[in-house]
Amino acid sequence: MTDAETFETRLAAVADEIETTLDGLLTAAPRPGETARPERLIAAMRHATLGGGKRLRPFLVVECAALFGRSGAGVLAAAAALECVHCYSLAHDDLPAMDDDDLRRGRPTVHKAFDEATAILAGDALLTLAFEVLAAPSTDADPGVRAALVSSLARASGLAGMVGGQVLDLAAESADASPGEAQIRTLQAMKTGALITCACEIGALVGRAGDDERTALIEYGRTIGLAFQLADDLLDVEGEAEALGKATAKDAARGKATLVGLIGIDETRRQIRALVEQADAHLALFGARGAVLSDTARFIAERRR
Amino acid sequence: MTDAETFETRLAAVADEIETTLDGLLTAAPRPGETARPERLIAAMRHATLGGGKRLRPFLVVECAALFGRSGAGVLAAAAALECVHCYSLAHDDLPAMDDDDLRRGRPTVHKAFDEATAILAGDALLTLAFEVLAAPSTDADPGVRAALVSSLARASGLAGMVGGQVLDLAAESADASPGEAQIRTLQAMKTGALITCACEIGALVGRAGDDERTALIEYGRTIGLAFQLADDLLDVEGEAEALGKATAKDAARGKATLVGLIGIDETRRQIRALVEQADAHLALFGARGAVLSDTARFIAERRR
Repeated sequence: MTDAETFETRLAAVADEIETTLDGLLTAAPRPGETARPERLIAAMRHATLGGGKRLRPFLVVECAALFGRSGAGVLAAAAALECVHCYSLAHDDLPAMDDDDLRRGRPTVHKAFDEATAILAGDALLTLAFEVLAAPSTDADPGVRAALVSSLARASGLAGMVGGQVLDLAAESADASPGEAQIRTLQAMKTGALITCACEIGALVGRAGDDERTALIEYGRTIGLAFQLADDLLDVEGEAEALGKATAKDAARGKATLVGLIGIDETRRQIRALVEQADAHLALFGARGAVLSDTARFIAERRR
Repeated sequence: MTDAETFETRLAAVADEIETTLDGLLTAAPRPGETARPERLIAAMRHATLGGGKRLRPFLVVECAALFGRSGAGVLAAAAALECVHCYSLAHDDLPAMDDDDLRRGRPTVHKAFDEATAILAGDALLTLAFEVLAAPSTDADPGVRAALVSSLARASGLAGMVGGQVLDLAAESADASPGEAQIRTLQAMKTGALITCACEIGALVGRAGDDERTALIEYGRTIGLAFQLADDLLDVEGEAEALGKATAKDAARGKATLVGLIGIDETRRQIRALVEQADAHLALFGARGAVLSDTARFIAERRR
């Protein structure tokens, strides 16, 4: 598949399926064995998760699983669980105590649409729900796979992964000295990279990938995670440059540590191209079956929003 | 065992083992496969979990597992995971956006000792760590048990359990009308009861309890969870009565919904006694082996702090 339109159609189709899956998880009515689902909490959880985004991480789960012929409700549930973790992290990062953002994708952030307490608790409940879903027999019939899914997501999103990366990012913003390249790479690998890599690992796990295949997908995930972050930094710089007529980055203005500020725009572009080639090299093992994941790497590298 | 000193010695011994287990989980040095453990985050997670408490929930895990001859590092890890969830919930509940408490057990709360962002993230990381620990092969060799542990904890602590109960509690505080008895019972069963019941279920799971035994322990957990909450409400009223010379409850003053305010002190005491008897009835199945859990019910009912 090299047709960009076909790729974007496929991406949108998976996003629709993830939306439907999340909608089904976040019903107002209590499930069997549940006492109650507080209406305001469910509403905030739905606000945090539904109605938006490219659903890139769930797409990676679905496409990695598809390499091994696995698809269906269980794969979508695992993908939706990972998306719950991504969405909870956005709700918490947006809080006044952290990035203090009022808007996300043009809509009020969770604490603006509800209140701070509800935004904190909705995030907590989404994180918890992710593990409930991964451990459910309906997600995967094999308990060994379910336990491995939980391990993978917990390691990627906890103190040595996403949450740890957010702590390092906040520390870098408030530090007197700008962080160096190694420090930025570490915090980005933890804050953004770990969950993207985890998406590929979860796809490999539900797909029953062999050891070599799983390793290749994890390395592919690491590589596109780096490309994702560099492309994001570049968008920030170029977006501001367009708006202000000069190359002043919004992130740089906030004291955010970005690599593009250290290595420059041209070098960032060169590194992104190199990462896309590396991603293809990790996919070589899969031959023609790897085409969608190869397109995904290009999509990430070239995205304009 | 009917000797109170023996019981309290046993409770203290398990608390020590849990402290050691939590200390071992929250090391500053990264584990194999981890990039980094941010120092400030680990420090806040340690502040939130170490150095205090009766460790009642972990004690229930340990003693329920002991009914079936199970003990050791795996049981303690499962018990410590559940305690991480309890401690994360306290760190988040203490935040300015919720109960806005500066002190807990005479020490500064996490957001006071660190800052709000760190308290939110330390809570997130503790919740995530709990699931990482439950899914680890070192906790239990059987992946089916590990997946069941994750399911049990996630259901007890999420939107239809502890987090949902906190949402209902905050809503009751800010509502114009005082909540009725049924409403209070629902929110307390979710906010406090679910995790106590889960402790018993986790003990049953790691102990390979049969269906009848597991059901009995879950019912025992529900019963002592109710007794725990009533005793807590009573302590609040009696503590204030001692301090102020009249029966004005601190919780009532804050608008907190308590049953003792609705049914009165004498009826509360009567219900607690009845619950202790019910707890013993659920333990009948275990004969003399149930003595420690029977003592635990009495300890909960009679506690003075």
